[in-house]
Amino acid sequence: MLDTGFIHSPHQILRVGEGFDLAAVDPDSTPGFAGTKQDGSRLLAACDGQLSQLQERLFAASRSGAQDSVLLILQGMDTSGKGGIVRHVIGAVDPQGVKHHAFKQPAGEEQMHDFLWRVAVQLPGYGMIGCFDRSHYEDVLVHRVRGLSPAAEIEARYDRINGFESRLAGGGMRIVKVMLHISREEGRARLQERLDRPDKYWKYSPGDVDERRLWDEYMQAYQIALERTSTEHAPWFVVPANRKWYARLAVQQLLLHALQQVGPQWPGPHFDVEVEKQRLAGS
Amino acid sequence: MLDTGFIHSPHQILRVGEGFDLAAVDPDSTPGFAGTKQDGSRLLAACDGQLSQLQERLFAASRSGAQDSVLLILQGMDTSGKGGIVRHVIGAVDPQGVKHHAFKQPAGEEQMHDFLWRVAVQLPGYGMIGCFDRSHYEDVLVHRVRGLSPAAEIEARYDRINGFESRLAGGGMRIVKVMLHISREEGRARLQERLDRPDKYWKYSPGDVDERRLWDEYMQAYQIALERTSTEHAPWFVVPANRKWYARLAVQQLLLHALQQVGPQWPGPHFDVEVEKQRLAGS
Repeated sequence: MLDTGFIHSPHQILRVGEGFDLAAVDPDSTPGFAGTKQDGSRLLAACDGQLSQLQERLFAASRSGAQDSVLLILQGMDTSGKGGIVRHVIGAVDPQGVKHHAFKQPAGEEQMHDFLWRVAVQLPGYGMIGCFDRSHYEDVLVHRVRGLSPAAEIEARYDRINGFESRLAGGGMRIVKVMLHISREEGRARLQERLDRPDKYWKYSPGDVDERRLWDEYMQAYQIALERTSTEHAPWFVVPANRKWYARLAVQQLLLHALQQVGPQWPGPHFDVEVEKQRLAGS
Repeated sequence: MLDTGFIHSPHQILRVGEGFDLAAVDPDSTPGFAGTKQDGSRLLAACDGQLSQLQERLFAASRSGAQDSVLLILQGMDTSGKGGIVRHVIGAVDPQGVKHHAFKQPAGEEQMHDFLWRVAVQLPGYGMIGCFDRSHYEDVLVHRVRGLSPAAEIEARYDRINGFESRLAGGGMRIVKVMLHISREEGRARLQERLDRPDKYWKYSPGDVDERRLWDEYMQAYQIALERTSTEHAPWFVVPANRKWYARLAVQQLLLHALQQVGPQWPGPHFDVEVEKQRLAGS
């Protein structure tokens, strides 16, 4: 990867560690990447095949008992590009190997359980790449900003999240948590586009402006969530996302890294190849 | 479409109608298409964007109350290319707008319900493209060939299937049922490849050969199912599939046709655009 435009690996340079400060991250920046937008787009396309092959191996290995899976969690303010990541990064792999879910406001049965229940229901099985558009982190983000839960309850949730994710990681899941970080101004420009283009109206909701007014409060809530829940087994990565091409490329590389860590192998035959060749010839 | 290689539309020429005879369909043929393999591959790629845009419109319209959806049902013998269709045709659209499900042998709770129950659970919601890899048709195919259900029960299922699909169509679902039709010899060659390539072993199961031995019985079961359940509201299309490029192209065109029939439109704004522009500017 180092000879393809990245001078530092995204999984190192974007990782939230000790002393992380969200306010110090420039949403316009392209950490670790020395190339141009064109280089970035070329690299994104060039790595699609690799991602796709690793996904197929992950899936294949699970058919012989491997218990690995990968879960990508996408968080970010409205218009930060979560959907674009799904379309342009996840969209490159076989839909049969992907379990995607977009979490909305809890409704119906979801409200009759603890906040992690609906998340557990949507987890990827062995061999799958899960992709969450929003997640249980809303329960410590919007809940904190809007006061939807008591402070003590929110306070307790960070530890419960860490315990939950630790259990999943222990069961063979690689968890990659991504915050797509855009600036307030970029968010405005993207909402403006939705109001300027009739084919984008459907993506706009008046409530989006109400959320924008609480931008600083959201950034504080993110800072706390990132600090408290970026762990060894489920690290957070803050991806500057004002430049969509960089965000997509960075998330692709994070996924690739997670899959390489799993290192899935084609499973050997669970039958006698020569015997089967003879049986097949006679059928 | 007619000026792009097709001299007859797939939704007309491949449709199972009065007097259909499966035995008369040549799996090597490319009905309605006058071009070469290269032309076909080019057309497939060229239509991806159109499919993708129609899918997005379908999704968008549902956000304003449209109750349309599309369901693609894929059936065919082992190695007929169902997975390839998902990967190469469905794979071109945004994963967020696709609900894919591969039906295996019923297990657990699925066995505690009528055969259509698990299918109903997996149906695409409004605005979604559903894609079934196998389906309730296994309950009149393998069940007939293997005698897994009493003859009278299987006999009754065709009508129940028609009633079920009719209800779905009445609720706004466009149902496209595709049988991928390969020859027995092509099936052997494809299984042979799985035994020759270690990266394909995982797709091979000794049971595949046992199924092949019942090829003629399966073709009979397909003939009956096609005759009995190709309806106005949920037609069957038999797609010759020895040439993968043709099968993919034909299914893509069938999907495109279904989406064009829906004719989804970008929804208008459910807010005052000028008011919102002012609110946004001040946020």
